[in-house]
Amino acid sequence: MLLRAKYTLCASSADSMPAKIIPAFRKTTETFAAGAKTLPQQYFVSPEIFAEEQERIFSREWLLVGHQNQIAKAGDYFVSEVAGESLIIARDQRPTIRGFYNVCRHRGTRVCEDASGHALALQCPYHAWTYALDGRLIGAPHMDEVPEFEKAKYALHPVNLGLWEGFIFVNLAKKPRPLEEWFAPLAGKFSHWNLSRLRSVKRVEYDVKANWKLMFENYSECYHCPGVHPMLSKVSPYDSAENDLTEGPFLGGFMRIKKGKSLTMSGDACAIPVRGEGKDQEHEQEGKDRVFYYSIFPNMLLSMHPEYVMVHQLWPQSPERTLIVCDWFFHPEAAKRDDFNPEDAIEFWDLTNRQDWHVCELSQQGIASRAYEPGPYSSRESIPAAWDREYVRRMG
Amino acid sequence: MLLRAKYTLCASSADSMPAKIIPAFRKTTETFAAGAKTLPQQYFVSPEIFAEEQERIFSREWLLVGHQNQIAKAGDYFVSEVAGESLIIARDQRPTIRGFYNVCRHRGTRVCEDASGHALALQCPYHAWTYALDGRLIGAPHMDEVPEFEKAKYALHPVNLGLWEGFIFVNLAKKPRPLEEWFAPLAGKFSHWNLSRLRSVKRVEYDVKANWKLMFENYSECYHCPGVHPMLSKVSPYDSAENDLTEGPFLGGFMRIKKGKSLTMSGDACAIPVRGEGKDQEHEQEGKDRVFYYSIFPNMLLSMHPEYVMVHQLWPQSPERTLIVCDWFFHPEAAKRDDFNPEDAIEFWDLTNRQDWHVCELSQQGIASRAYEPGPYSSRESIPAAWDREYVRRMG
Amino acid sequence: MLLRAKYTLCASSADSMPAKIIPAFRKTTETFAAGAKTLPQQYFVSPEIFAEEQERIFSREWLLVGHQNQIAKAGDYFVSEVAGESLIIARDQRPTIRGFYNVCRHRGTRVCEDASGHALALQCPYHAWTYALDGRLIGAPHMDEVPEFEKAKYALHPVNLGLWEGFIFVNLAKKPRPLEEWFAPLAGKFSHWNLSRLRSVKRVEYDVKANWKLMFENYSECYHCPGVHPMLSKVSPYDSAENDLTEGPFLGGFMRIKKGKSLTMSGDACAIPVRGEGKDQEHEQEGKDRVFYYSIFPNMLLSMHPEYVMVHQLWPQSPERTLIVCDWFFHPEAAKRDDFNPEDAIEFWDLTNRQDWHVCELSQQGIASRAYEPGPYSSRESIPAAWDREYVRRMG
Repeated sequence: MLLRAKYTLCASSADSMPAKIIPAFRKTTETFAAGAKTLPQQYFVSPEIFAEEQERIFSREWLLVGHQNQIAKAGDYFVSEVAGESLIIARDQRPTIRGFYNVCRHRGTRVCEDASGHALALQCPYHAWTYALDGRLIGAPHMDEVPEFEKAKYALHPVNLGLWEGFIFVNLAKKPRPLEEWFAPLAGKFSHWNLSRLRSVKRVEYDVKANWKLMFENYSECYHCPGVHPMLSKVSPYDSAENDLTEGPFLGGFMRIKKGKSLTMSGDACAIPVRGEGKDQEHEQEGKDRVFYYSIFPNMLLSMHPEYVMVHQLWPQSPERTLIVCDWFFHPEAAKRDDFNPEDAIEFWDLTNRQDWHVCELSQQGIASRAYEPGPYSSRESIPAAWDREYVRRMG
Repeated sequence: MLLRAKYTLCASSADSMPAKIIPAFRKTTETFAAGAKTLPQQYFVSPEIFAEEQERIFSREWLLVGHQNQIAKAGDYFVSEVAGESLIIARDQRPTIRGFYNVCRHRGTRVCEDASGHALALQCPYHAWTYALDGRLIGAPHMDEVPEFEKAKYALHPVNLGLWEGFIFVNLAKKPRPLEEWFAPLAGKFSHWNLSRLRSVKRVEYDVKANWKLMFENYSECYHCPGVHPMLSKVSPYDSAENDLTEGPFLGGFMRIKKGKSLTMSGDACAIPVRGEGKDQEHEQEGKDRVFYYSIFPNMLLSMHPEYVMVHQLWPQSPERTLIVCDWFFHPEAAKRDDFNPEDAIEFWDLTNRQDWHVCELSQQGIASRAYEPGPYSSRESIPAAWDREYVRRMG
Repeated sequence: MLLRAKYTLCASSADSMPAKIIPAFRKTTETFAAGAKTLPQQYFVSPEIFAEEQERIFSREWLLVGHQNQIAKAGDYFVSEVAGESLIIARDQRPTIRGFYNVCRHRGTRVCEDASGHALALQCPYHAWTYALDGRLIGAPHMDEVPEFEKAKYALHPVNLGLWEGFIFVNLAKKPRPLEEWFAPLAGKFSHWNLSRLRSVKRVEYDVKANWKLMFENYSECYHCPGVHPMLSKVSPYDSAENDLTEGPFLGGFMRIKKGKSLTMSGDACAIPVRGEGKDQEHEQEGKDRVFYYSIFPNMLLSMHPEYVMVHQLWPQSPERTLIVCDWFFHPEAAKRDDFNPEDAIEFWDLTNRQDWHVCELSQQGIASRAYEPGPYSSRESIPAAWDREYVRRMG
């Protein structure tokens, strides 16, 4: 909305926005899917389609739930809410990371109440049935009085679990495609980023009143950056995107960071490089002036900056509501340095995140109108269009 | 409920209520629809009937959304929620009042976020698509790179809009009956009331947990006034109603105000007459001692007092919830006078409104019971019965 | 969950829990239904089954709503919410206790707004229709102008009501089985407990996010007591239950109280015995060292301690939510004694109640999982299994 006090709009400026609001646009050679339009209304509001997504996507695909360094020691665990299910993700004594449904085999009670913790065994708070960290039932009072009862039949129900670059993924399908096969197209692509060694320094959860797909579409273009993110646009030009993954479940590329600048409130680097210093000459230049944005279908956003990595998990709650969990990861040695200032990055992106969620919520509201019809994507929105195509394929 | 400490009820008093509670009733010659009973339960609780009302009534009839003096200057606008739709009502440069769906043609985003304001153009906050105040798309960055894209095809979707006596009405139907035809039965009836010149001095919104029809039925009779509105009943006798519109979409008439009294907390007039002073000899006497109550199907209540006009908009939210927007209008010159005291009227009716909403909520609760069955309207409830008949015709 | 800092768990302890958590278990001869498992998931989450329960059980069976001493004098009344209905329970002048739907016969309005009170007659707050305490319409202003209107046809709709041991029960069925027939199996069983003379000293309401059946199952076993109720377990051994009612709508028996102890925070008796002192030699010993727990299908829990009686009413609100009303009753003379200390008992059970509701809520959460399947009841859970069987019969 243009308030008179703030702007003087020249109505004849037609296709270009006024200089105060949007920097001059220039033609680009960016690939563009002619005729691509946004998805029809029902994909954003229908409870039936939401249920189908939960079944076809969130109950069949590999889903990000966390990072291995959240549970560094044997006995560490955390609880994750996945497609309406509470899962226990624990590191057992061997030490292997395992996942279980958080449901006692006796009377169905939640076994773990806390969001995370450390335990030698998992004991149900109701009747004290006790499970080893590998899921085996090892204590069940009085059940030896029950004829034909066998403890071996009453282990916690396991959930499929795998690791990629240190990130923990689960899959609710009975026989899912192997994790390695799914991530094969990315093999080696991020290995110089040290992702498996990083530590999350901060987690923020956002409750967003918008369909989860709007956040993927929002993440996938910077056409909105000049108006929505004035601070970001100053250090990373909105039209500097170069995408190397342009079709399929993994999409994205990099944008340039102005020389000597950083994506922080101060504009200065806030930590040592995540890749380590001086060990990575091949990619060193690339690592300094670029921020890499990749979306990993269906619930991960991976944003790699020179000195930190931001990761979003998206958890659809209803057609019109999404829970977003955002972590800021740093080099494991970063905290030992005097100049470590993670809040400088956290505050920058927390602000930017909220700007994004706000416009996503405004889109959700408008899309629910009887007046909404799919609109045309611009030349700057080829990645959202590709994401939509992948989504439609997964739903097919 | 009669508490022992407050009342001594004579159980044998039969058809008359005790003097303390209800003034003596006298027989009247008021028209009475023999056999008329209240509507069956489903009309107040069924989600299916609610959806049908939204479709047959609130998507087809002319609906009050405000008054032209809310947007007095070119560029003024306000946003109205109508049947689940957000509409922009704006005065353009010509200066014509226009209505648009608040949905960007690009990705469906809400264009206007604020409830009201002033703008030179309407710019979407997401990707800065910009619309003139007449709805034309005048700015769409990068879209000139999209083959065959034509701005002329992407104007904001308009909504039908019309004015009656200065009040703004919208209609969501594709080809609605003309506003002038709808209001033809009232042509000239209120022209001496200066309605188009009045200014709203106060707006109060009420969130009422009752079906919208209960508020129309409540507004249409004063049988409840002695018990529910003791202060109102003192200055305006509950049995003084004379209705001149007794069938159809417009219903009502006047009630007497005691000589020298006013419907204010103090009992004194709080402003100059809305009709102006000394210019209206023909209706002058009528304008002094009477308050006129008219319901305008399906969402307007028009209450005209000698020195102010109260207008309710009713917005059904669910079968069991209604949003009510209430404005108090005064003569445009009223505020210039030293004796202008609008709070005296606002407080009086705010109190009276809340008394009404409370009994409507109690009715909603009881009607949802399995024990509810349509009850008999009294001789004092001919207008509620007529309103019900009109409602049933519109739903047919 | 076992936190490392708190416990050292011996994984090889197998069927016995560590001594710190659970006292040693010993084999018992308690009857045990071989093969009995918990109910399938849909009984705890399905809206359809909930609706069927409301119809087949809560609209047909006798339901506890209160105690006759809540409305000791003619004109006393209280309002009870039963299966979505608001009922007025009042003592009339004769003085008979009667029940009515809280719905005015005129326009359906709630007649009584307050949760309880005292009245000479029941007057609707909307149009002042007035009913005698026996339900007859005795005042209806202006209705004498309505041809063929007869007050006799517009009494408040009555609801079936009966008394058992001083407790008030209602039944929404048109022709319910007589109350005396229903309670015949318990005839005389509790007569020496003075139940009809007791007075409620305290009422606490709990809003529990769990299916109502989970609270019955929870109440019916003490297998959970060692872990969930450490304080209770100290004074009343979890394995001391002796049940005398083991099949059908009335289930339960007693548990032992350690000699000289009481179920209070202090461990001391907090009031004179509910049975009176010295008048009851036959049952005297029994009355001192035992607490009796009985469930009365479908909404009453009756817990009789030597010096107080606790009664729970269970009111299902949705498949996943239950309102629980808990009263603590004492001997009518108890309050006259200097050593009367009811808070000692109230606090004890309020704490214990909340421990129970918490594990019921954890069960509700886990049972909603796709991983839940009926689990095996132990030998200590014969009464929950019997309750389930009765429930299934009532639903058949």
